[in-house]
Amino acid sequence: MYRARLERLQRQMAAAGFDGLIAITPENFLYTTGAYIMTQKLIRDRLALCVVPASGEPTVIVCNIEESLTRAESPWEDVRIYVEFKISPVEALTAVLQEKGLAGKRVGMEKKYITAHYWEQLTKAMPATRFEECKDVFNRVRVIKDSHELELLEFANRTTTEQIMKAFRNARPGDSERKVSAEIMNGLLNEGFDEPFLVLGRGPRTIQAHPIPSLGEKLTNGDVVRVDCGGLFKGYFGDVARTVCVGQVTEREADIFKRLAAIQRETIESAEVGVQARQLFELCKSLYAKNGLPFHMPHIGHSMGVELHEDPMLNPFTETPLEENMVLNIEPIVIVEGRGYHIEDLVHVTANGPRVLNRPVLDDEFFSIR
Amino acid sequence: MYRARLERLQRQMAAAGFDGLIAITPENFLYTTGAYIMTQKLIRDRLALCVVPASGEPTVIVCNIEESLTRAESPWEDVRIYVEFKISPVEALTAVLQEKGLAGKRVGMEKKYITAHYWEQLTKAMPATRFEECKDVFNRVRVIKDSHELELLEFANRTTTEQIMKAFRNARPGDSERKVSAEIMNGLLNEGFDEPFLVLGRGPRTIQAHPIPSLGEKLTNGDVVRVDCGGLFKGYFGDVARTVCVGQVTEREADIFKRLAAIQRETIESAEVGVQARQLFELCKSLYAKNGLPFHMPHIGHSMGVELHEDPMLNPFTETPLEENMVLNIEPIVIVEGRGYHIEDLVHVTANGPRVLNRPVLDDEFFSIR
Repeated sequence: MYRARLERLQRQMAAAGFDGLIAITPENFLYTTGAYIMTQKLIRDRLALCVVPASGEPTVIVCNIEESLTRAESPWEDVRIYVEFKISPVEALTAVLQEKGLAGKRVGMEKKYITAHYWEQLTKAMPATRFEECKDVFNRVRVIKDSHELELLEFANRTTTEQIMKAFRNARPGDSERKVSAEIMNGLLNEGFDEPFLVLGRGPRTIQAHPIPSLGEKLTNGDVVRVDCGGLFKGYFGDVARTVCVGQVTEREADIFKRLAAIQRETIESAEVGVQARQLFELCKSLYAKNGLPFHMPHIGHSMGVELHEDPMLNPFTETPLEENMVLNIEPIVIVEGRGYHIEDLVHVTANGPRVLNRPVLDDEFFSIR
Repeated sequence: MYRARLERLQRQMAAAGFDGLIAITPENFLYTTGAYIMTQKLIRDRLALCVVPASGEPTVIVCNIEESLTRAESPWEDVRIYVEFKISPVEALTAVLQEKGLAGKRVGMEKKYITAHYWEQLTKAMPATRFEECKDVFNRVRVIKDSHELELLEFANRTTTEQIMKAFRNARPGDSERKVSAEIMNGLLNEGFDEPFLVLGRGPRTIQAHPIPSLGEKLTNGDVVRVDCGGLFKGYFGDVARTVCVGQVTEREADIFKRLAAIQRETIESAEVGVQARQLFELCKSLYAKNGLPFHMPHIGHSMGVELHEDPMLNPFTETPLEENMVLNIEPIVIVEGRGYHIEDLVHVTANGPRVLNRPVLDDEFFSIR
């Protein structure tokens, strides 16, 4: 699998005219090496790098205390280490680039990740080497999911949906936001998720994009409740949003939910091979008008994989046409009369049309906590 | 509280000769504004910024969908927004810097966080402005904890310790690494933690610095088990490590644990005001020799607060003398005969000597899962 990815990456590299690529984001490091190094995100100075040459196997660079994990998880044999505080990871990188004959060449770097601090070290140490942004090269490979990835994404998103609904079925009026959210997170952890994330808000807090669940906020009869959550399953994201209510809401609120669900359904049904990402955005926007709801979204969804937001973004600017084996989170949101409503599901684009990965049947019931 | 921090920050800024500071890391954004924006870490392009002038109140810059949360959590009134994909957050920043008369001045930037991509945008848009590293200015303020911070750190670390030991008391031989770790994480979430992190390994996996708990690895009689975990409580880290055994281990293994506990105890007792960080490192290293254990650690601990590793780092290079109201994680590790042992506790440096924040009594029992 990693060898197949390497070959696809090397083809895209050649097409983009790079002599070498450096994976520096946790996502591309994981995607190219198979090693999941938790501290790469927690301790930002401690770089983990993968140098991908035009042909042949990559060289992996990690700090010494991550060597045994890297060797256990990655298929690549050439693992180099640096000792933290003694030398900068950029020194270790420079040595590898020189050894591999990449000095003076055109080398891809993820400039949306490397910090100005390390960037100055690198460009000063190798002034004749042209380091240029290569995010697009990785993205062109990652945008099409292989069957291993589709399986993980399906499991991650189906499980996230199940755990959300299980927690809402168990919830009762009077429970705190934190109690409900802890049950969802617990469920995800028990299923083997890493780095679960969750925002949940009730009542007026539903209008915040990312409310942190509170111990003091209690679910109250007549509340609208919004949750958006997920996490990593074997390196792949689950990300699902649901809006439910507590007890009885007004007819007006129930009707708003119903319209939003109709907008989502129609948008999903239009996610066909060949449709441009921006066309899906425009369609969704027009469905808001048709359903009499206000539209304020900068994007209506995004792709996902080892990263939470991946290309193509479903915004007005993305001209990418949908292809087979892309996946799309389609997540219409609406704020009406001081309440936020949000539904997010993961759609697999196939030659036979869109397939919702995280729930077998699309339904638009407004679930009520009783 | 935020006003007191602002004043300390402005004094340090003046001393370091900066005309303005830009907080761009999630940690310094939270520290200066009080707003915890979860997506700042999840979606790296979506910047949240706080511009701190030499005098007067800061200006906060967030993307439009985070405005309501920011206004709800931060005491600062001047909140500016940018619409994602329409303009770059750096454009919004540039406008504020110009308005505040900071163009052409010396402005502090966290160069170990801003990416090369945004750095090039910023320095191109404002070529006459001297953007220089200001991490140390923030660190000089953050290194001394106020009473609010000490309370949160004590709660976070005491709770982490309690949840670890509760899970080990409930664990039985045959349980998977993942089962035990999920119980710890669940406990932390129920107590109100965000972003829990955890590594746990049994037997030979204890030698990995950061083993991800596995569903397939079962606790087995005679195992050594190592866990290192924590998370954020209201923005402040808990971070505790424990080593336990399963059933009966060899006398040799029990003896190694005992020696490591003795090393930690003596190191903690030496954490007095005035001792240099590097002296504590050297002392700990000499205690390994005295106790007949091999020493391979690049550092023996670190400070902590809104960030997992903060100054001072307890490594051979840090000359900082310990001061009242610093906190230190002291975490000796040893690998002997294919097994890793690790104990980590949080120490508060006071005028009356060191105080272990996360457990009232230091004991060196080798806990056994039965």
